[in-house]
Amino acid sequence: MIKIGIYGYGNLGRGVECAIRQNEDMTLVGVFTRRAPETVHTIFPDTPVYHVDEAATMTDAIDVMILCGGSATDLPTQTPALAKLFNVVDSFDTHAKIPEHFEAVDKAARAAGTLAAISVGWDPGLFSLNRLYAAAVLPDGQDYTFWGKGVSQGHSDAIRRIEGVLDAKQYTVPIEAALDAVRSSKNPALSVREKHLRDCYVVAAEGADKARIEAEIKNMPNYFAVYDTTVTFISQEELDRDHKGIPHGGFVIRSGKTGKDGENTHIIEYSLKLDSNPEFTASVIIAYARAVARMAAEGQSGCKTVLDIPPAYLSAKSGAELRKILL
Amino acid sequence: MIKIGIYGYGNLGRGVECAIRQNEDMTLVGVFTRRAPETVHTIFPDTPVYHVDEAATMTDAIDVMILCGGSATDLPTQTPALAKLFNVVDSFDTHAKIPEHFEAVDKAARAAGTLAAISVGWDPGLFSLNRLYAAAVLPDGQDYTFWGKGVSQGHSDAIRRIEGVLDAKQYTVPIEAALDAVRSSKNPALSVREKHLRDCYVVAAEGADKARIEAEIKNMPNYFAVYDTTVTFISQEELDRDHKGIPHGGFVIRSGKTGKDGENTHIIEYSLKLDSNPEFTASVIIAYARAVARMAAEGQSGCKTVLDIPPAYLSAKSGAELRKILL
Repeated sequence: MIKIGIYGYGNLGRGVECAIRQNEDMTLVGVFTRRAPETVHTIFPDTPVYHVDEAATMTDAIDVMILCGGSATDLPTQTPALAKLFNVVDSFDTHAKIPEHFEAVDKAARAAGTLAAISVGWDPGLFSLNRLYAAAVLPDGQDYTFWGKGVSQGHSDAIRRIEGVLDAKQYTVPIEAALDAVRSSKNPALSVREKHLRDCYVVAAEGADKARIEAEIKNMPNYFAVYDTTVTFISQEELDRDHKGIPHGGFVIRSGKTGKDGENTHIIEYSLKLDSNPEFTASVIIAYARAVARMAAEGQSGCKTVLDIPPAYLSAKSGAELRKILL
Repeated sequence: MIKIGIYGYGNLGRGVECAIRQNEDMTLVGVFTRRAPETVHTIFPDTPVYHVDEAATMTDAIDVMILCGGSATDLPTQTPALAKLFNVVDSFDTHAKIPEHFEAVDKAARAAGTLAAISVGWDPGLFSLNRLYAAAVLPDGQDYTFWGKGVSQGHSDAIRRIEGVLDAKQYTVPIEAALDAVRSSKNPALSVREKHLRDCYVVAAEGADKARIEAEIKNMPNYFAVYDTTVTFISQEELDRDHKGIPHGGFVIRSGKTGKDGENTHIIEYSLKLDSNPEFTASVIIAYARAVARMAAEGQSGCKTVLDIPPAYLSAKSGAELRKILL
């Protein structure tokens, strides 16, 4: 049994708590929280809850610690710190800062003889893998990543900060015409506006100036101004009833040419349609936690990403079984 | 530069000859053929052609030998034999016999200290990878593989063997309603007939009994009887003009559930739409030839499949570069 710890307990931590139960070769040692443990209500009542200060005393009890904090402030310090004690997996997703995060975690893990996997999830993660495979197979080509339809927490938060807004949810929506243009191998040059639109559902305070709110949303630099944005005002009841999920997904499409004179075209398309972004991310993390446990048991150490890990390590099945049933 | 040899020169060998030119870190040493070398016309006139008997004298000149023979009779003997001399890659695709082929190649490669990758292509190959990743991430789920629209050489050959048939081309076509049922997460139980149909274009000899030919096709056990099959008689000119390509492709779709009570559903879909089946397969092989060259240079030996090979080895880019631009 692979013994798992969950470090940080929000949506992602809850997803990991559920995902572990789908994998018979894993067991959950407990959740580690900065809050008072007795105030934390886990999904399953028998899940032990510890204060983060106890983690350092439990290195022998845990094979892989899964870090479920945020990329902005938690993971840049937590992952290197925890890698000194445990094999770790995180879902660090600030793309531009991945190289420096990798270096910091790699240094800590090498010094401690532990193994770490960072930026595990679907983007970065499964989407990165698909970009890599597709580019390696079709070097004379171009790839496109689309996101959605799905909830962007950052954009939803940005709307909530506007005066007169009580609550909001923003969906990123890929534009079908752009997807079709990419699939038709036209290698289109697509502007930001042509790839995605932003669909906003807003609860306004009573008496608030809706026209002003709508204008503030649509003109917000970076977040909305460069996109076509729709704003729909609804009641809190409607928001709670119709927009309570955290769906997401997207597409990685590469089109490329082969042949003597590039006369043949090929399309590789990978897509995800996810009811729950955090639960799916948790499921990816759990598969990579298995790989980390195995590779660590073989004596490997340092930092890895999904690009470095042999696929077979993700499965509980043996190599011979995989060759027989999957290949 | 990675020095490549092509062993066997049919459609796949020609595809490899073209694909090597798209990869700046590779060079083609030559084509090895059982025919008289002077009778072989390569796509690029400067490609050297050698008799297969010369291969054994050229072990120092070649980093990876790519075997482009057929799975039925060539590869079961050629791959183990060549693995005694070279690092090798093949596209052995008789799914049921992969385990025994693996054992034979692994034994030969280990004894010789060479590295082999077998069953490289898209199915087995990229489709196998996607079945593995999706099953590891969504253990509580079900996956489906659909093929087409594409040409099945085996089914086309079976039609050509019918009396009165001069030429024929058979397309395997996935049934849209079945794809939609899978995408809607209904986990449908699909019969063979419900997943694919078979679309045949047949050139009949003058005066041949077309009704008898059509009946023989539609009632042919295994090949056609268990499918809905359409037969269209056309002229040789039409066949040559409208059906000269070797397109193929397909879909690997997994739907699975997560959450406390499996309340959330996720769909992972991977699809290929290929103008040229052999050229795309060749492109996959070339990427894995790079991985084999690198892993062999690190001292690895024995037999591998796509499931064992870390993705980053497929790319000519460094790990740091991949983390920066792709992850």
